[in-house]
Amino acid sequence: MEQRHVEEIRTMISRGRILTDESDRYSYSFDGSFGTYLPDVVVQTKDVQELAALVKYANRELIPICPRGQSTSLSGGPLPVKGGIVIDLSVMNDVLEIDEEDLVAVVSPGVLTADIHKAADRKGFLYPPDPSSSHVSTIGGNLAENSGGPRGLKYGVTKDYVIGLELITPQGEIIRTGGRTVKNVTGYDLTKLIVGSEGTLGIITKAVLRLIPKPPAAKTVMAIFDSLVDAGRAISKVLSSGILPSKMELMDQASMLAVENYEPSGLPIDAEAMILIELDGHPAAVSDEAEQVSKVCSEVGAREVRVPETKAEMEEVWQARKLVSPAIARIKPTKISEDATVPRSQIPEMCRRLQEIKKKYNVHLVVFGHAGDGNLHPNIVADKSDKEEMGRVEQAVAEIFKAAVELGGTLSGEHGIGTMKAPFMEMELGAAGLEMMKRIKQAWDPNNIMNPGKIFPEPGQKLVLTE
Amino acid sequence: MEQRHVEEIRTMISRGRILTDESDRYSYSFDGSFGTYLPDVVVQTKDVQELAALVKYANRELIPICPRGQSTSLSGGPLPVKGGIVIDLSVMNDVLEIDEEDLVAVVSPGVLTADIHKAADRKGFLYPPDPSSSHVSTIGGNLAENSGGPRGLKYGVTKDYVIGLELITPQGEIIRTGGRTVKNVTGYDLTKLIVGSEGTLGIITKAVLRLIPKPPAAKTVMAIFDSLVDAGRAISKVLSSGILPSKMELMDQASMLAVENYEPSGLPIDAEAMILIELDGHPAAVSDEAEQVSKVCSEVGAREVRVPETKAEMEEVWQARKLVSPAIARIKPTKISEDATVPRSQIPEMCRRLQEIKKKYNVHLVVFGHAGDGNLHPNIVADKSDKEEMGRVEQAVAEIFKAAVELGGTLSGEHGIGTMKAPFMEMELGAAGLEMMKRIKQAWDPNNIMNPGKIFPEPGQKLVLTE
Repeated sequence: MEQRHVEEIRTMISRGRILTDESDRYSYSFDGSFGTYLPDVVVQTKDVQELAALVKYANRELIPICPRGQSTSLSGGPLPVKGGIVIDLSVMNDVLEIDEEDLVAVVSPGVLTADIHKAADRKGFLYPPDPSSSHVSTIGGNLAENSGGPRGLKYGVTKDYVIGLELITPQGEIIRTGGRTVKNVTGYDLTKLIVGSEGTLGIITKAVLRLIPKPPAAKTVMAIFDSLVDAGRAISKVLSSGILPSKMELMDQASMLAVENYEPSGLPIDAEAMILIELDGHPAAVSDEAEQVSKVCSEVGAREVRVPETKAEMEEVWQARKLVSPAIARIKPTKISEDATVPRSQIPEMCRRLQEIKKKYNVHLVVFGHAGDGNLHPNIVADKSDKEEMGRVEQAVAEIFKAAVELGGTLSGEHGIGTMKAPFMEMELGAAGLEMMKRIKQAWDPNNIMNPGKIFPEPGQKLVLTE
Repeated sequence: MEQRHVEEIRTMISRGRILTDESDRYSYSFDGSFGTYLPDVVVQTKDVQELAALVKYANRELIPICPRGQSTSLSGGPLPVKGGIVIDLSVMNDVLEIDEEDLVAVVSPGVLTADIHKAADRKGFLYPPDPSSSHVSTIGGNLAENSGGPRGLKYGVTKDYVIGLELITPQGEIIRTGGRTVKNVTGYDLTKLIVGSEGTLGIITKAVLRLIPKPPAAKTVMAIFDSLVDAGRAISKVLSSGILPSKMELMDQASMLAVENYEPSGLPIDAEAMILIELDGHPAAVSDEAEQVSKVCSEVGAREVRVPETKAEMEEVWQARKLVSPAIARIKPTKISEDATVPRSQIPEMCRRLQEIKKKYNVHLVVFGHAGDGNLHPNIVADKSDKEEMGRVEQAVAEIFKAAVELGGTLSGEHGIGTMKAPFMEMELGAAGLEMMKRIKQAWDPNNIMNPGKIFPEPGQKLVLTE
């Protein structure tokens, strides 16, 4: 980027900070996925008008703009792959209002998702989307990627709770979509188009989120299986029994082993799988449902079924699930976290295929995740300095995507496409489907300045995990 | 349309019917709103490939295409305002599968929504969206307009249950969006863009709908108020008390009077308002919540609170609510049914403004509807042959829209924009917001053949209710 642009940007951002030192810029060159890309300049401002003027300038001068929250993305969403300006929206965190009458939260993009949970909770409400990263990720990032989480099973994902947005368009106009009403059919649903568009259609500067009453009670059922396929059958049977749990998580043997090695807590490491089922709602409903779920699990052949009675016991069980990610990260330095998702009926078959892929490419594959909605998290741990191993990993990952799509599923349930999965888009969508998405991008951002290089594959682009 | 087009269409639609007689075409010239527009030809076919070829042809020859279900639309969605081809999708009704494992229904566009309800119910599931017209309206129409209904309060609207679509694009390509997984973040959410786009972005030929377990119990609370504003306060207080009812309906004095005149059932016609609150879920939860809701209503000043104990009593209460629409249609020949929606906190203020508008323009205004989500249904009854009266009605309707937008609400909560509300789009969205919607339409349908004349206002277009 030419120096004159930096000078110009300095005059425009009078109430914020401009970072140009290489050491500062380096902190903005990576996220939770792969690759390092240095931006030319980093801009921090809380002023939406200033930001809009900056976007107008960038659009005129054809400078890439990459909005960024806390960069916990696992798919490369915030990476400045074409250089240009990174907008650090984590500083835009001043608005966090809970409106008890309208049953909404109004938030700035830089607010941490966990802070929304806490603010809602204090007033007796729940903001359901609960990505595992919520204590460190911003709502802006959650909106850009349409983040999910365990509670997605019963309550849906981020998109299901966004009813209004303020957005800076790629031309630097400030528009408002939706509003504070839960019903709105006035024209095209720009709100739901923008949520999950990974920063490619504009910069979200405010959001209105729907809240629900906090469920008064919760119980957890823990079931241990000697066979992973039986665990899959139990999941399927619970879901068709008329019960919708708030969470339904799976840990395979490899993930239990990893957690036991990391922080021993007596997990049944000789079993092939454990499932954790959380039920929430009215206390009487929760008790009844916990009993029914236990019965179903036993019938399908669970070796052991347990319902922790105290809050401490319940938290301990969930703690094991939370430790899977850090525990497997210790096995080898490089962790490839996928979120290919399949229809519920295909969960057992997907488990089988993952085991096959693991053997075929001799990779360290661990399966855990949100089993109830088919959103498994096959993770591969490897060492990225080992080119030969990484070659096998790349092939295994490609085959995981292929399996998911073949089973009627999708490349990504909640992490987004970003840079990593772009090469597989046409496999899932077909040329005509991908073309209709591209048309929206071209119509909104003809100069391709908003987060370029994301979602849409470059000609001939392949999955590359080695740098 | 030239005769050669009709001949050409006949060769393309080998497995369907082509209607060209004026008397046949007349049946396709109106819907539940205003105006009569004769199509040039009506096409019925169950064959998606044939239909796609027809759309390709129409796109090449610049012939308007208007998809149509049962035409119960209240906003003009299916009207062939520019002539051309009406596609009668009510004949495309062969697929209605309930998949108990994936917890989805797969449906053709011509299936009646009530038939989906019944099919799901037989297997212990619920398809929640319940537009009042569900016994006569097709799911295709519900998808095009993103229909709501009373249960929208707790369960959301049509869009919240659509996870996959098959669509014929304006270029005649068949694409698939989404799929059978409840989580999917693979690129832009075309599914939710298409639902509610009123047939302007393509023809929906199949849909995958999410089902939920059927709630095992339900109870209704009926509360009668001497003051409409107190009724509004009760609604607001119940909602912030930690309870989310499945339905929360309001009937004002004028609607009770209309129903009593139509079919007497002892409604409290001397009261200013009645609210009906339905709670559903586990039997114990429902009992507790009915008690709490009754208490809140009494505290706010309800004159009478009643919980019907038998199923027959409960049905009788809801029957009164269902009769409002037919009852008021009997008062005068022309019924203008609006669905302007406001944030929940503004319900009492919107009620006040509606009373003002009623007086100011001396119109016969009735207020009822889905009060819990701010989706009131102000209806005006009039006689369309009385030009002077209709002039006042037009002004009153315009002022209703203005009031809703001023209070932070929206032109339409569930009926759609169609032809009627198009002139008011810019008032709600601003020029820049409307421009971003138009860009999508232009990018997808550059020849403007898909249902032209809907959503987007023509230059200088005004609300006209007189023909």
